[in-house]
Amino acid sequence: MASPDVVYVNGDFTPRAEARVSVEDRGFVFGDGVYEVLRAIGGRLFATRFHNDRLTRSLEGVRISLSAEDSPERFVDIGKRLLKENRLLQGEAIVYMQVTRGVATRAHAFPEPEVAPSVYISVARFNPYVELAERGASAISHPDLRWARCDLKTLNLLPNVLASQTAKERGAFEAMLVRDGVVTEGAKTNFFGVVDGCLRTHPCDTHILPGITRSVLRDLARELSIDLDETPIKVAEIPRLSELFLTGTTADVMPVVRLDDKPVGKGVPGELTRKLQGVLAESLASGAAGD
Amino acid sequence: MASPDVVYVNGDFTPRAEARVSVEDRGFVFGDGVYEVLRAIGGRLFATRFHNDRLTRSLEGVRISLSAEDSPERFVDIGKRLLKENRLLQGEAIVYMQVTRGVATRAHAFPEPEVAPSVYISVARFNPYVELAERGASAISHPDLRWARCDLKTLNLLPNVLASQTAKERGAFEAMLVRDGVVTEGAKTNFFGVVDGCLRTHPCDTHILPGITRSVLRDLARELSIDLDETPIKVAEIPRLSELFLTGTTADVMPVVRLDDKPVGKGVPGELTRKLQGVLAESLASGAAGD
Repeated sequence: MASPDVVYVNGDFTPRAEARVSVEDRGFVFGDGVYEVLRAIGGRLFATRFHNDRLTRSLEGVRISLSAEDSPERFVDIGKRLLKENRLLQGEAIVYMQVTRGVATRAHAFPEPEVAPSVYISVARFNPYVELAERGASAISHPDLRWARCDLKTLNLLPNVLASQTAKERGAFEAMLVRDGVVTEGAKTNFFGVVDGCLRTHPCDTHILPGITRSVLRDLARELSIDLDETPIKVAEIPRLSELFLTGTTADVMPVVRLDDKPVGKGVPGELTRKLQGVLAESLASGAAGD
Repeated sequence: MASPDVVYVNGDFTPRAEARVSVEDRGFVFGDGVYEVLRAIGGRLFATRFHNDRLTRSLEGVRISLSAEDSPERFVDIGKRLLKENRLLQGEAIVYMQVTRGVATRAHAFPEPEVAPSVYISVARFNPYVELAERGASAISHPDLRWARCDLKTLNLLPNVLASQTAKERGAFEAMLVRDGVVTEGAKTNFFGVVDGCLRTHPCDTHILPGITRSVLRDLARELSIDLDETPIKVAEIPRLSELFLTGTTADVMPVVRLDDKPVGKGVPGELTRKLQGVLAESLASGAAGD
């Protein structure tokens, strides 16, 4: 039986095919909004507190104030209702939530008087990349063309779209972005590498999104007494990478075994990658960072 | 009598208040689209050929292919019909046209199979800044946080939105953006300045939008044997500016007489600014660059 496929838009639960917003929504004309993607396993949302905090931070960063009745916690409840109505309480799913500055006559500056932000929440079935996570994925390097506030999870995603499409056309799972001679992150993920035996990743500054899985994994690494050096990987160090992997809400820990059509290290998932992949999987299964 | 206020969305002419797009439109979730704003004077569109060429260039830059029946020329015709239906054939108006990559299940890479781009066109009454153009406007300097392809007129406008809002809050007409120690352009306009008697503006590269008014003005300056040096104005040169002005489709040539709460030059519109303001006004009145 077909799923009813219901989404939430501005107070209404409505079939996806009929869900509409105004052409004057600032999301549509300016990309003026922020979003989050959460993972649901067996109807249970993973790391909601982290996602809620990041959503709050993104909203503050772009200066959008939620309506009095709205909150990230309420969005999570709506997400749970959508999971139920769309019969996604078993297996894996994602919850997408987006807030824009609302509907107003087009003008760059914020609407005056203030308007209510638009809220769009939807859910979808998600199939984890089990096979790819086992054998390892490929990536391409790509110039990081994004703006100077990549720490905010905004709807201004055109550079990510273009990099993702280039990766896809070259048969790669992800684009690894390079800015000023260092690896920042992926178009949709964070990147980690092992250089001279040392686990490295870009520090959390305005050039990367503070990934939830990145953060969870950093804590898990600490528990295993694995040092994580938040010094970005230089392009010049890429040939010396013995391991490379990416992290994300849907990618988990994904080994990257080929970069720009060349093998990384021995061309198979590395030892440290496997170890971290294992502990993250345990954490997800146990719901340790769940809600 | 109230204007009917009709807009065009994806084949339909419909009242603005009822004009809707899918929540899955890539404009709404990725800012995945491009746009143009044209000036109409007495029902006549100004510089359509330049706008059409730039729209084509923006579409190519983000790799959106129009549907076979669509073209920038068709959008102009729709704009003219909207001007008529909205009784905007007298006086001044603007035509806004936007193309997004269309509606598809959310995934960064381009939809497969390809979907038809979404087209949204609207018109609005526009009141030229007559008084402000006479006495001169104020501006603030602001970090240029935008991405590396500012030459494309895309919907990823969040940095422009935030800079415009900051300018508004500081009582300024525009934010003058500064990247790597030089003035690039405004959040919505191009900037020109006179340093040591020489007219300067940022060259057309990936850090600025090739403004239509900028281009028209360059040609007009050439006819007047006014040299235009396309060497960007350095931040260090700002105290030496004797004149400053900005250009845009709705701003025309707008003198900037105060920058960051300090007078520019003598704090009144400069001689060269006035001359260029005059020749642009003549050009607009004569429809020299019109369709």
